[in-house]
Amino acid sequence: MHFEFYILNFEFSFMNRTNLINLIYAKRSFLCIGLDTDLTKIPKHLLDFDDPVFEFNKQIIDATHDLAIAYKPNFAFYECNGTKGWRSLTKTIQYINNGYPGQIFSIADAKRGDIGNTSQQYAKAMFDPASSGMNFDAVTVAPYMGEDSVKPFLSYSDKWIIVLALTSNKGAADFQFFRDPERRLFEQVLTKSREWGNKENMMYVVGATKAEMLTDVRKIIPDHFLLVPGVGAQGGSLQEVAKYGLTKECGLIVNSSRNIIYASPGLDFAEKAREEALKMQQEMTEILIAK
Amino acid sequence: MHFEFYILNFEFSFMNRTNLINLIYAKRSFLCIGLDTDLTKIPKHLLDFDDPVFEFNKQIIDATHDLAIAYKPNFAFYECNGTKGWRSLTKTIQYINNGYPGQIFSIADAKRGDIGNTSQQYAKAMFDPASSGMNFDAVTVAPYMGEDSVKPFLSYSDKWIIVLALTSNKGAADFQFFRDPERRLFEQVLTKSREWGNKENMMYVVGATKAEMLTDVRKIIPDHFLLVPGVGAQGGSLQEVAKYGLTKECGLIVNSSRNIIYASPGLDFAEKAREEALKMQQEMTEILIAK
Repeated sequence: MHFEFYILNFEFSFMNRTNLINLIYAKRSFLCIGLDTDLTKIPKHLLDFDDPVFEFNKQIIDATHDLAIAYKPNFAFYECNGTKGWRSLTKTIQYINNGYPGQIFSIADAKRGDIGNTSQQYAKAMFDPASSGMNFDAVTVAPYMGEDSVKPFLSYSDKWIIVLALTSNKGAADFQFFRDPERRLFEQVLTKSREWGNKENMMYVVGATKAEMLTDVRKIIPDHFLLVPGVGAQGGSLQEVAKYGLTKECGLIVNSSRNIIYASPGLDFAEKAREEALKMQQEMTEILIAK
Repeated sequence: MHFEFYILNFEFSFMNRTNLINLIYAKRSFLCIGLDTDLTKIPKHLLDFDDPVFEFNKQIIDATHDLAIAYKPNFAFYECNGTKGWRSLTKTIQYINNGYPGQIFSIADAKRGDIGNTSQQYAKAMFDPASSGMNFDAVTVAPYMGEDSVKPFLSYSDKWIIVLALTSNKGAADFQFFRDPERRLFEQVLTKSREWGNKENMMYVVGATKAEMLTDVRKIIPDHFLLVPGVGAQGGSLQEVAKYGLTKECGLIVNSSRNIIYASPGLDFAEKAREEALKMQQEMTEILIAK
């Protein structure tokens, strides 16, 4: 049904920094919707479909695609369903690519990272549709194993990696604040890793629950985009995030998952998801205009 | 064909520490074979099978199951093939569980880790066959996100997590040696995380390429099992690893992947893999006897 866009936007179907920024200003939004799709939480009537998880995602995407600039399937929620879950995941990214080319920044929230020859295979999984059937714009990666665990993802042009820096959970304090005389580990991750790529192919995860720390983050990476989880269910505030993290090119992608996708457990779930997404998009529009 | 073992060993089909140690002494081996199965590297004649990756794994396992105590499918090599790859992976773990119950310690080499509610879903993927079809004994996890990213995996009894401490790759130096006045990050990971579980449900990854550092590791965790990658293709030495890492209950699982599974590109690949595995098992037997 959305293939009419395919011809119109084909040349924009890779999502480089310029296209991403254009998308943000066109939609007046920097909202990412997290597709943490859980069979036990989706409306019961969807369980009659052959692939309830995909059907849920499809309806959420169709109801919110003009309000969100990005979708972020969280791989764990698909892997827990085994092979069937990977089929739902693959269908979801294909639906985004074919249905809304050039209109969605797609993020594989997979938190991968391993030795070089292994990360190379993970990169194929995320970025090489001829191999895996999947063609995301970006993948989240864990930095613990260092440069050669991250570099293989950067060998794909027009693709992005989003490195974990400062996460939104309580456990972030266990190691991310570990410090040498000069800086904390998350600052060391920012400082070292920014040399591996540039602001055209790297972003960072910085949790909304630690918004005041965005000042420290911005000292090291003033222009990189940040993917910010933790607004909503985890307690972070959009205003705080914008106050400390916004740049003149926006520089933020703020994720919300549960607050939007599970806004209603009933037949009206997609409509209610749209209402929640609209609230966020409107708040974001005001923030962008004020800036 | 191997179901005759099922009745004999059913009560051993969960792999707690005692059973694991018994297995090591029964087979006189602490060898793990890494199933990094790559469609471009397996013998050409297997490409005629409906599922070449599974067929390769099956023949490798059948040819080496008495010499290896563990198999470690590396998830990246399955994910790069998309849904089809997950089917090969699922069939492989099911083959191990059904064909060799109580005789194999199975490791999901997935390097997962995310906020609590997400790690919970990853744990279901690895440990809950009713949900995902997969039932591994252990999963490798990345520690960057701290305690709440790791704990959900520990809520399964008789299952193990294997935390990345000191990895075998060059990039390990980027962050794992970052230090505060008292210790380096990998030592901080060992020190903090050992409180989250115990030697009955936690192991650590320590690369063979850094064998001399096993002395520092053993000061912090004298009794925990270590999963040691990097022997063989990556250049680590089995003798060095044993010298610094072996305990009175063995305490080591040493992995080899490419050296064994790609010993021959021909029709004799399984036979040649057995020859390579046998060399390692014999060296391990000598090490165990000498101890």
